[in-house]
Amino acid sequence: MNDALKATLVAALKSWIESANDPASDFPIQNLPFGIFSDAINAQPRAGVAIGDWIVDLSVLEDARLIDGHGTFNATRLNDFIALGQQTWRDVRIALSALLAQGNATLRDDADLRRRALVPRKDATMHLPVEIPGYTDFYSSREHATNVGSMFRDPKNALLPNWSELPVGYNGRASSVVVSGTKVRRPNGQIKLPNDERPVFSACRKLDIELETGFIVGKGNALGEPIPCEDAEAHIFGMVLLNDWSARDIQQWEYVPLGPFNSKGFATTISPWIITLDALEPFRTATPAQEPQPLAYLRHEGDHAFDIELEVTLRPEGAQRATTISRTNFRLMYWSMAQQLAHHTVGGCNTRVGDLMGSGTISGPTPDSCGSLLESTWNGQRPIELEEGGERAFLLDGDEITLRGWCQGEGYRVGFGECAGEILPARG
Amino acid sequence: MNDALKATLVAALKSWIESANDPASDFPIQNLPFGIFSDAINAQPRAGVAIGDWIVDLSVLEDARLIDGHGTFNATRLNDFIALGQQTWRDVRIALSALLAQGNATLRDDADLRRRALVPRKDATMHLPVEIPGYTDFYSSREHATNVGSMFRDPKNALLPNWSELPVGYNGRASSVVVSGTKVRRPNGQIKLPNDERPVFSACRKLDIELETGFIVGKGNALGEPIPCEDAEAHIFGMVLLNDWSARDIQQWEYVPLGPFNSKGFATTISPWIITLDALEPFRTATPAQEPQPLAYLRHEGDHAFDIELEVTLRPEGAQRATTISRTNFRLMYWSMAQQLAHHTVGGCNTRVGDLMGSGTISGPTPDSCGSLLESTWNGQRPIELEEGGERAFLLDGDEITLRGWCQGEGYRVGFGECAGEILPARG
Repeated sequence: MNDALKATLVAALKSWIESANDPASDFPIQNLPFGIFSDAINAQPRAGVAIGDWIVDLSVLEDARLIDGHGTFNATRLNDFIALGQQTWRDVRIALSALLAQGNATLRDDADLRRRALVPRKDATMHLPVEIPGYTDFYSSREHATNVGSMFRDPKNALLPNWSELPVGYNGRASSVVVSGTKVRRPNGQIKLPNDERPVFSACRKLDIELETGFIVGKGNALGEPIPCEDAEAHIFGMVLLNDWSARDIQQWEYVPLGPFNSKGFATTISPWIITLDALEPFRTATPAQEPQPLAYLRHEGDHAFDIELEVTLRPEGAQRATTISRTNFRLMYWSMAQQLAHHTVGGCNTRVGDLMGSGTISGPTPDSCGSLLESTWNGQRPIELEEGGERAFLLDGDEITLRGWCQGEGYRVGFGECAGEILPARG
Repeated sequence: MNDALKATLVAALKSWIESANDPASDFPIQNLPFGIFSDAINAQPRAGVAIGDWIVDLSVLEDARLIDGHGTFNATRLNDFIALGQQTWRDVRIALSALLAQGNATLRDDADLRRRALVPRKDATMHLPVEIPGYTDFYSSREHATNVGSMFRDPKNALLPNWSELPVGYNGRASSVVVSGTKVRRPNGQIKLPNDERPVFSACRKLDIELETGFIVGKGNALGEPIPCEDAEAHIFGMVLLNDWSARDIQQWEYVPLGPFNSKGFATTISPWIITLDALEPFRTATPAQEPQPLAYLRHEGDHAFDIELEVTLRPEGAQRATTISRTNFRLMYWSMAQQLAHHTVGGCNTRVGDLMGSGTISGPTPDSCGSLLESTWNGQRPIELEEGGERAFLLDGDEITLRGWCQGEGYRVGFGECAGEILPARG
């Protein structure tokens, strides 16, 4: 089957759940992302799949012998399910696709089962979808690295020599990764003001976002056994949106020589639904040309970017409307997820199911496509005007930031849902 | 009771296990460190305490109702036991101390129980003692930071301005922390040779050690709730030796601007026995004077260093004798463990039971007290002579590195045992 025919067939899929057929829904039958939810009727967190305005309770469908998750769905995290392997993820997704497809009566016409298996999304509480054994953050947008290098170091040599040779990354703090909706407290810390000899202890004055995506490792590797670049995508379960909240003033003082620490460790927010690579497959596209050609261990044939539209909005406390402060696309990223994973493991480092790997801030070439306020306001010098008046250099208490992402198909979109967080004032 | 009297009483303690009374034993009755072991008779890893040449099987003593671990001893990691809290650790340690003390017949004269509860250490396999949710590495030796800054940056401004204001730290890779005795494979990676325009892919040519200690978090903190410096020691379960293996050539090329990554992520070795802070208490001493006085959140009254002698030996493949390549002391560290933990959490970052926090390389003021070959050989320029001939700039395949540490009491020592690893050749 050629790609055009395949795309037409995928686009033609419809569900008997009407809200899933809305072209604006993030969760059509083409998506079927995995998450962990609970609700008022059953407060026990468990595995679900989003479809239109509903969540399918996977443990209920397994009890009814309609899907097979080897008993892993009645769990507070997806790790045990993910550890079953790619074939199982695919089998479950294909079985769900069939059950939810227009014309399939099995679930649709079983009123009792339907009542137990379908939970309204608006009534559900979403939880962190995976236990994260390790969180790594990359730095793979050329535009972002150039902007930051220009501001913090030297505009003439903004991109450091290693940047175009390897996907620069560092270890983040896994303990403070939280799910969308968790409020984020402004951190206190050491800040060095330009005219003072010594640092002061202060609430962060330059609180910022970083628009990122992240991927979840679906199959780890043993210590000492690298993942080849060509195999790397088979080790990825799926993707989420990620906001790597950043305290720029704390960061600038602390980050030499060992990298960011407290400026990032207070919170990282991810979206609750993991979009599988299978759902993203129709949106595969070419990465930007890489010059110089990477060393052999970082080479892969074919297309390894994904065409994911990204948007960031800011809503001040009490405001009716949010202001869009960034629009960009994941396909601009210089280094692919496969290259990131191959590089991460090339020295023998092991990865584990549930590991989270952030893309790094995703910035385009213009101020309105930057993934951080640091860049779009040029370190606060050019504040952004808000729709209901006022402006922002960095975040104020009460601001709510929401990341959204979606792949636009013909008449449908594979969406990521929201990755949101509101700023609480610093501890007194 | 005054300190001198207390010290005399502690020193006078003896056990009916004769090997524990050897002044050269690391594991007298004054120590009683916790670990996870298995043996040929029972291959199931479980909790134990070292005493002389023996290991006390804690689950056997709990079954006999002689100690109370709330059912946590029959586990492959100590996390559940540690999570019971400081009072429980102390109660168990005090009960063991009584059971093992000279004159106590309960265990000594119960031949059947003794046979089941005591396992010869030489017959045991030690395992990683805790599941490590997060691994943080600090950089708290002034001498080490000065040496590295001189070599990698500028000798005139070796110590960066933030160093004397805060305990610089970064997130390490928890997945590749291994227990002493695990062989370590030389990593491959990108190396930038001075006369080449581009990096090459190569086995590491400057493989090094870092002599460190680490502490294990015994009580975490919730997100957004910092641990005050004065309370921080109550959050520490105990200490281990730690070798932060480092690929210097990979490090020098990759580390800007986000810190070390693949140069450290291939392996970190820790010793198997966790020495409790209670066992270390008699060896508490003053930290070096801190100038300037730290900001208020980093201040604590009293003594917060520990007098721990440290030693590193190198034994080439096939050699009879190992060469001592470093002798130093933990008490030289500029920043205390309490200050490290207070700083780590001051912005709200949460910690969890089992988190590992490395001290950073422990170096003294002279080449023979440096905690890394990078420093003692000055980046390979002044190789160390080995006892059986030959010399070392950096590690060769087959080299075995062993760290040892102990607190010297009057007629006894509280020892850490060994933290050892042998270098395997790189993957072809």
